[in-house]
Amino acid sequence: MFAESEGIGIRAFIGSGNEAMITIEDYMEFFETDDLTKTVVLYVESPKDGRRFFESTRRGSRKKPVLMLKGGRTRAGNRAAASHTGALASNIEVFKAACRQAGVVLGETSMDLLDLSAAFSSLPLPQGNKVAIMTLGGGWGVVAADLCTEYGLEVPELPSHLISRIDKVLPPYWSRSNPVDLVAEMNLSVPIIIIEELLKWDGCDAAIHLGILGRLVFVKRMIESCHMADQTCDRKVLVEIVRRVADFELSYSEHVVRLMEKYGKPVLGVCLLSDENARAIKEIEGSQYKGVSFLTPERAVKALAGMYSYKSWLDLEGISIQR
Amino acid sequence: MFAESEGIGIRAFIGSGNEAMITIEDYMEFFETDDLTKTVVLYVESPKDGRRFFESTRRGSRKKPVLMLKGGRTRAGNRAAASHTGALASNIEVFKAACRQAGVVLGETSMDLLDLSAAFSSLPLPQGNKVAIMTLGGGWGVVAADLCTEYGLEVPELPSHLISRIDKVLPPYWSRSNPVDLVAEMNLSVPIIIIEELLKWDGCDAAIHLGILGRLVFVKRMIESCHMADQTCDRKVLVEIVRRVADFELSYSEHVVRLMEKYGKPVLGVCLLSDENARAIKEIEGSQYKGVSFLTPERAVKALAGMYSYKSWLDLEGISIQR
Repeated sequence: MFAESEGIGIRAFIGSGNEAMITIEDYMEFFETDDLTKTVVLYVESPKDGRRFFESTRRGSRKKPVLMLKGGRTRAGNRAAASHTGALASNIEVFKAACRQAGVVLGETSMDLLDLSAAFSSLPLPQGNKVAIMTLGGGWGVVAADLCTEYGLEVPELPSHLISRIDKVLPPYWSRSNPVDLVAEMNLSVPIIIIEELLKWDGCDAAIHLGILGRLVFVKRMIESCHMADQTCDRKVLVEIVRRVADFELSYSEHVVRLMEKYGKPVLGVCLLSDENARAIKEIEGSQYKGVSFLTPERAVKALAGMYSYKSWLDLEGISIQR
Repeated sequence: MFAESEGIGIRAFIGSGNEAMITIEDYMEFFETDDLTKTVVLYVESPKDGRRFFESTRRGSRKKPVLMLKGGRTRAGNRAAASHTGALASNIEVFKAACRQAGVVLGETSMDLLDLSAAFSSLPLPQGNKVAIMTLGGGWGVVAADLCTEYGLEVPELPSHLISRIDKVLPPYWSRSNPVDLVAEMNLSVPIIIIEELLKWDGCDAAIHLGILGRLVFVKRMIESCHMADQTCDRKVLVEIVRRVADFELSYSEHVVRLMEKYGKPVLGVCLLSDENARAIKEIEGSQYKGVSFLTPERAVKALAGMYSYKSWLDLEGISIQR
């Protein structure tokens, strides 16, 4: 239901049960060669045949991302897994090392797997770990920069030529630094210009924008309050504001997808506010890519970090895959 | 808006800006003595007067939980903070150690702060770190047990007298272990009995239940499907099922709150499914406590771990607070 509400298609959903006959290794071998499966998402307590399992995930990872949540990482979890599927306890560090070798992307929580699926199926892979951040508010930029570092991504300083170009569109007191703080600039053309400047920059492998989308909810609430405070205020003006913001959000999403096509770099959004459950995926006609926005910076950062770890493994293996 | 949608009251909301005159230390001293403030939530890039700040948070923590997200934990975050509020870089390990001494509960993300607020303002504090888990499905129990261990909580084995009592209400193939797997038992009286058995147990300081609430969304979807598949099927039966599940969810929430009163132990829920944004807080008339359910196991576990860390600090300081 989460997947459905977030626009992620399900090719097949299998609960392998107690695996009396068909095991996760069998299913994995099917998904590896099935063209309709674009991403494989696994919840595993313990594979029955470790070698076969890691051989098939490794072959699978050479063609499509294989994402996994491992149940039974701790003694308490192992005990619970033993009573659930009869799983044998395994050393989690050995298991993780095998996953790293096989190119499997490990999630920390079940939500991670969905966020990673959304990212992998909607965005181009990043070529490296350098992130440009554009934010509507300073504190959010700090939070995102911390998270990037903590998840192994880099937030490089802006080169002076880029600072001069952004100088032309932002007020003189802007941050002059990455994250680019839009200092609550409400001029709707500004983020459209800056996001392209960032993607053009060869020091940037991926971009995260914070608070550019999701203003609609905020504006609607503001208008409700205006109306409550002053019943005589002109409804028409208020409705016009909502219309403009809605138009902007649509055209910004489309712009971002076109830029992903043009520069081949992933762009992840974080909504200012959302009336939806978690994340918004926006399909744009005629593109293989989609606009993706998350509800919180940590979800966007973790998704990007997972994409980067998969790309690094592909590079190590000398594989380039078209998605 | 997140707070509002999740039923968390806001006593005051202050952005301290560039702190030309009034600083976060001043505000902290106000919240420390303000009786209407039950929990203090801070986002801090750098306090201007470290000693005064930690003295006031420490005094504050002796009366009410003080929760904090620190911006600028990394070099990239510090650089962003410098351009945002002019914050000075600080050594995060030193900062964290000072927080531990002052009883401040550190969150990892902004959502953590909201989840912790919900938990602190709705539940009794746990007396220790031992968690009993009751789950509708085995895999979810494994996930929750792993998370408990990873966040410093214990998931103790069940004593044999408790196993015998639960034997009477669950089918013979139940897990006989903590997490207590209800093996998808749909008899609605079962979780009501078992949750009390767990709270009665002196080896349990807190309980987490998974999938007991939030079945309503699932049942509604199922009924939609039934109706689509067979238009002749009796609507009255379907409507009756929804009514029963809705009644159950209400009476279960009330039951849990009464048990928290009776045993003085916190109970945290995780919804099977939710049509709301994040978490449900259920007010029950005549109780100081509220029913709290989260959307994911990790959010429930992190909230409980934060409560336990605060309680441990209070114990070290020899303070007992009535909430």
